[in-house]
Amino acid sequence: MSAAEGGTIPATMRALRKAAAGPGASLEEIPVPVPALGEVLVKVEAASICGTDLHIHRWDSWAENRIRNVPMTFGHEVAGRVVALGPEVHQLETGAFVAAETHLFCGHCGMCRTGRAHICENLRILGVDVDGAFADYLTLPAANAWVVDPRIPTDVASIQEPFGNAVHTAFPAGTDPDLTGSTVVVLGCGPIGLFVVGIARAAGAAQVVAVEPNEFRLDLAKRMGADVLVNPSAADPVQAVLAATRGRGAEVVLEMSGIPAVIDQGTRMLRHGGRLSLLGLPTERVSLDLTDQVIFKEARIFGVTGRELFRTWEQTTTFLATGMVDAGPVITHRFPLDRYEEGFDAVASGRSGKVVLVP
Amino acid sequence: MSAAEGGTIPATMRALRKAAAGPGASLEEIPVPVPALGEVLVKVEAASICGTDLHIHRWDSWAENRIRNVPMTFGHEVAGRVVALGPEVHQLETGAFVAAETHLFCGHCGMCRTGRAHICENLRILGVDVDGAFADYLTLPAANAWVVDPRIPTDVASIQEPFGNAVHTAFPAGTDPDLTGSTVVVLGCGPIGLFVVGIARAAGAAQVVAVEPNEFRLDLAKRMGADVLVNPSAADPVQAVLAATRGRGAEVVLEMSGIPAVIDQGTRMLRHGGRLSLLGLPTERVSLDLTDQVIFKEARIFGVTGRELFRTWEQTTTFLATGMVDAGPVITHRFPLDRYEEGFDAVASGRSGKVVLVP
Amino acid sequence: MSAAEGGTIPATMRALRKAAAGPGASLEEIPVPVPALGEVLVKVEAASICGTDLHIHRWDSWAENRIRNVPMTFGHEVAGRVVALGPEVHQLETGAFVAAETHLFCGHCGMCRTGRAHICENLRILGVDVDGAFADYLTLPAANAWVVDPRIPTDVASIQEPFGNAVHTAFPAGTDPDLTGSTVVVLGCGPIGLFVVGIARAAGAAQVVAVEPNEFRLDLAKRMGADVLVNPSAADPVQAVLAATRGRGAEVVLEMSGIPAVIDQGTRMLRHGGRLSLLGLPTERVSLDLTDQVIFKEARIFGVTGRELFRTWEQTTTFLATGMVDAGPVITHRFPLDRYEEGFDAVASGRSGKVVLVP
Amino acid sequence: MSAAEGGTIPATMRALRKAAAGPGASLEEIPVPVPALGEVLVKVEAASICGTDLHIHRWDSWAENRIRNVPMTFGHEVAGRVVALGPEVHQLETGAFVAAETHLFCGHCGMCRTGRAHICENLRILGVDVDGAFADYLTLPAANAWVVDPRIPTDVASIQEPFGNAVHTAFPAGTDPDLTGSTVVVLGCGPIGLFVVGIARAAGAAQVVAVEPNEFRLDLAKRMGADVLVNPSAADPVQAVLAATRGRGAEVVLEMSGIPAVIDQGTRMLRHGGRLSLLGLPTERVSLDLTDQVIFKEARIFGVTGRELFRTWEQTTTFLATGMVDAGPVITHRFPLDRYEEGFDAVASGRSGKVVLVP
Repeated sequence: MSAAEGGTIPATMRALRKAAAGPGASLEEIPVPVPALGEVLVKVEAASICGTDLHIHRWDSWAENRIRNVPMTFGHEVAGRVVALGPEVHQLETGAFVAAETHLFCGHCGMCRTGRAHICENLRILGVDVDGAFADYLTLPAANAWVVDPRIPTDVASIQEPFGNAVHTAFPAGTDPDLTGSTVVVLGCGPIGLFVVGIARAAGAAQVVAVEPNEFRLDLAKRMGADVLVNPSAADPVQAVLAATRGRGAEVVLEMSGIPAVIDQGTRMLRHGGRLSLLGLPTERVSLDLTDQVIFKEARIFGVTGRELFRTWEQTTTFLATGMVDAGPVITHRFPLDRYEEGFDAVASGRSGKVVLVP
Repeated sequence: MSAAEGGTIPATMRALRKAAAGPGASLEEIPVPVPALGEVLVKVEAASICGTDLHIHRWDSWAENRIRNVPMTFGHEVAGRVVALGPEVHQLETGAFVAAETHLFCGHCGMCRTGRAHICENLRILGVDVDGAFADYLTLPAANAWVVDPRIPTDVASIQEPFGNAVHTAFPAGTDPDLTGSTVVVLGCGPIGLFVVGIARAAGAAQVVAVEPNEFRLDLAKRMGADVLVNPSAADPVQAVLAATRGRGAEVVLEMSGIPAVIDQGTRMLRHGGRLSLLGLPTERVSLDLTDQVIFKEARIFGVTGRELFRTWEQTTTFLATGMVDAGPVITHRFPLDRYEEGFDAVASGRSGKVVLVP
Repeated sequence: MSAAEGGTIPATMRALRKAAAGPGASLEEIPVPVPALGEVLVKVEAASICGTDLHIHRWDSWAENRIRNVPMTFGHEVAGRVVALGPEVHQLETGAFVAAETHLFCGHCGMCRTGRAHICENLRILGVDVDGAFADYLTLPAANAWVVDPRIPTDVASIQEPFGNAVHTAFPAGTDPDLTGSTVVVLGCGPIGLFVVGIARAAGAAQVVAVEPNEFRLDLAKRMGADVLVNPSAADPVQAVLAATRGRGAEVVLEMSGIPAVIDQGTRMLRHGGRLSLLGLPTERVSLDLTDQVIFKEARIFGVTGRELFRTWEQTTTFLATGMVDAGPVITHRFPLDRYEEGFDAVASGRSGKVVLVP
Repeated sequence: MSAAEGGTIPATMRALRKAAAGPGASLEEIPVPVPALGEVLVKVEAASICGTDLHIHRWDSWAENRIRNVPMTFGHEVAGRVVALGPEVHQLETGAFVAAETHLFCGHCGMCRTGRAHICENLRILGVDVDGAFADYLTLPAANAWVVDPRIPTDVASIQEPFGNAVHTAFPAGTDPDLTGSTVVVLGCGPIGLFVVGIARAAGAAQVVAVEPNEFRLDLAKRMGADVLVNPSAADPVQAVLAATRGRGAEVVLEMSGIPAVIDQGTRMLRHGGRLSLLGLPTERVSLDLTDQVIFKEARIFGVTGRELFRTWEQTTTFLATGMVDAGPVITHRFPLDRYEEGFDAVASGRSGKVVLVP
């Protein structure tokens, strides 16, 4: 490990650990990890909470099936400063302020060799498959460290990973420029949905329709630039979209909820020739009316995951650094790391956007 | 009506009629229709039987829900000679040998005005919504008459419509050139599936995998150029495709069966980043594992219907007129129109490819 | 001719005529034309002046080579009310307020049959090949009449045709969504260049660079949303673009000037992988450094002309009717038709944007 | 350096050296290079001669301007066996049989980070900027070593690099599937042109037109699958293409000659909406009629260089390993390394396809 810049690296650190398979987590003192070949050691400055972290904390069935190694440190949306370099790191220097691309790719499968490392056939996820970011320090492959544009503030830096999900959902490879001038529907206004409302607005959507049952989030959607707000408890979203489009349907639907019935609605509000991008992850099978809603309409359904490496990060930087999208309203809470329980409670409360933990 | 070329048009003609809502059909003598404004009168030289015609003949639940006007003449895959012009027809002359594009479009909806008339928002189908082609004559909008390349023989001319379905499924708008050099799987080898085997072969697929339970059709798939034949009664198609691709999956899957379980298999045999085109029409909802098979793989699903007007017809002409694809092996039976029952039996038997009726 | 709505159609009208091959034009009293089969008669409410009209007025070498029939009425950017229908017009009614698509297409060539009628192989242009719009009335094929969105005011309605050129240059078929988040350079800020500045701004360009030697127009470019203004008399545009992009070059360059040296500059300011769209028409051959500026950079050059029928008109309607782009600042002058000389002088002065003539 | 497999690595080797700025080259005995960090040492088994090598040998003005460091070893189309690994090489083992991707990329510029390393902003070329392949051994970054499919024979393995140029010209990113069913013209039938004739044939071109003044090469083009042969000494290529397309022009033109007048012809033989890909490198500026041949036609011009990393190599493997394209007829000569002068003479003679040197 190279000498750190501006200070000594301690021997131990705090880390939020899942000690065993089961609910809960605890802040423990563990050794600061040593960056292996090709890795850097990052001193965490901000780490935001993802829905995935809540699953791991609660240890629901998803977590039970997915998490293979405990004990482990979780958290993956993170920005911090490089304080040490492992062997064979050449492009990065200590002192660099970086955010983490959380898809750890093998580099040699067919996807990695053809520019699609984000869907690597041997993919591992930071904070899920390897120790993550709710800690004072974490190690990260240098190839996964994205140098943050200096115009982006620290807590916004940590949300670039989910913001990149939003960017990638809006602009998957292989679409024509279909946001500009279109009706764009966002199904589900958690943080990623809120981000994509802002992105669609910045990209010149003719109108952005936000669908979300939680009024707190719906209000945030309005602040991010949504033109039409639909609370599905009060109005049928399909009818609302048809009404907003003179009966034609929306050119673009961006699905963030992962709820099967909502995905089905997504197909039914699509215009002929429209595009439905799926980012939200259903936990059960989804039943669709393919004949009438997909085939006869010639709809296109795009599965979307992660971020394109690193086209999406360049786009994300442009949106956030130039002020085209102000992610500020979405970041509703900040807590020190040791008050992590309050952070999880805030996420679970439904009265929050993004919650950031600061070590 | 203008004067016909080469002979008198009789007052009456034979037409295969669905007399009432219910099974069966009968060959009746009815007046020769008069071409209305913008229409032409076509003397039928070959009309092939589509699966849809079998549904109408049997009067199954699909037909019961879909067919609104009886009595009616059915049949829609047709080629014949223009023998008279209705008012306001300027681009066609009597004597022209034409095939029918069966999607009758309104010409003024948002789809029609943006080059997507085949998914017209006010679409009507020849032989389903208006009188069709199992007759001595039919009327057709001049805009739906495609002049047949003289290198294409008469019975092949009549199958250009389903062949065009195959072309359009292979090359939907908005894909990169993904057939050449790829593993292409065809699910279901009815006539359209058989055509698309030949098209994928001609387009330089690295290998074409044909999946079909009917051995007669599987043999035809081999004759059309399939490299790998999978009978799902004997082998799991998903495992067979994985085996043929060193575990990676297929870049392109073309779904022609409309069977929900097969569509589900289609998603499971797709490679990361792969494309699934859906042409077969499921009669019930389809349950999919979107998370693992579509989202994490970043698969793309394209609904496909009809033919692009008239890009697909140009492509179809090229494939058939240059000999790039020999559709001959698929045309297994020919009957005179009055032996239509034998024709329907041949289609139903499973020991047939395309069956052509000749008046 | 059907009965006109709301008033009698007079027997004669004023029309700005090119009486003979040579400079100048005169307002003459000629018979009101009678709409032929498939045509409508339009009472002109606003007709704006295009650079082409100036060429015809001056009778420069372009006009001498291009205009085949004199006497003729010129002018083609027009909006007005349908007052009579010729035979066989079914989709339009008298009273409709329409703008003219000026590319008159044959409807049956390979381009027309595959959704590219704007590059019809037998194209004729309104006001160039057939009598045009600087008159009280004009006839127009009904298929070329676009019903104007009621939110668009009359004089803006007449500039939809050049605005559509700008839209089509920004979004030609076959590009990825490359404006949003990119550096977009506009070379030449005549009216179409000014429109495209507004369009790139609305589509979320990271920065719009406007290059124009005329300070009056450069000021208009600023009002339309340009972030960086470059007067090539004062600064080298290539260096200016490199400076604005940290030496990388622009992702998108939209060429509106038609000046060979400027087109060459356009290639030299492109980033690797960038896109150069050419709308401006050079009157002589253009010499390019293809090896270093196109091939090694893998630049893409798109020729662009007219507007896609009618995808571009839908996009144009969205931009103008929703207020995404305010074309108002570009319309700098309005004159009654009989003061047409003042109109041409205003266009020639260089101290104008768009000049509209009102009968 | 790790221990070599199957034999001792000698201290010195033969290498074809450009000793000083000026014509000629000499086979010298120099030390075997030592693979640096991230590099491998490859024992050459076949190295084919590129036109670039002829330029370097002759020391023409291109070479004089381009080659910065002498003495140097040239040659870059190469296949051989990995016999030693430098530090930090993890994906490759000694014994692997590899071909060289000759574009040495930096890995951290904007192009490299967005999947376009072949147009890296800091690109260096093997055998041009660093020592190359006409030698017994060469060093190569492990990231540039492509493991050869075992079905591909040794000398074909060495021509995968120029074959990849042909593949990339045929299928640049961002085109629709435009080869299948199209008229494809190949301008210039040197080895890359000959390869692309075979590729267009395999991809289902409706017809392949080969234009080449050298009858020996024209005959090879026929063997590779060209349907129409045009010797521009005998017939005007533009007229020949128009004649072969009923006056319409070709959908796709692939320019391999780099001759300005031929590039101009390429634009004039394009159909409306057609695509011209430029791979041949003109040594002077090229004058084009952009207005009539590019803008009014809405032609698209794509600059093409190198190979997409590594999408093109996967496609190349498929074409060559499956037998879809037989590159055999193009490889006309084989010489031992020490008879290199005969090799260069054969290339210069015009009576050769590809010439392979074998150490």
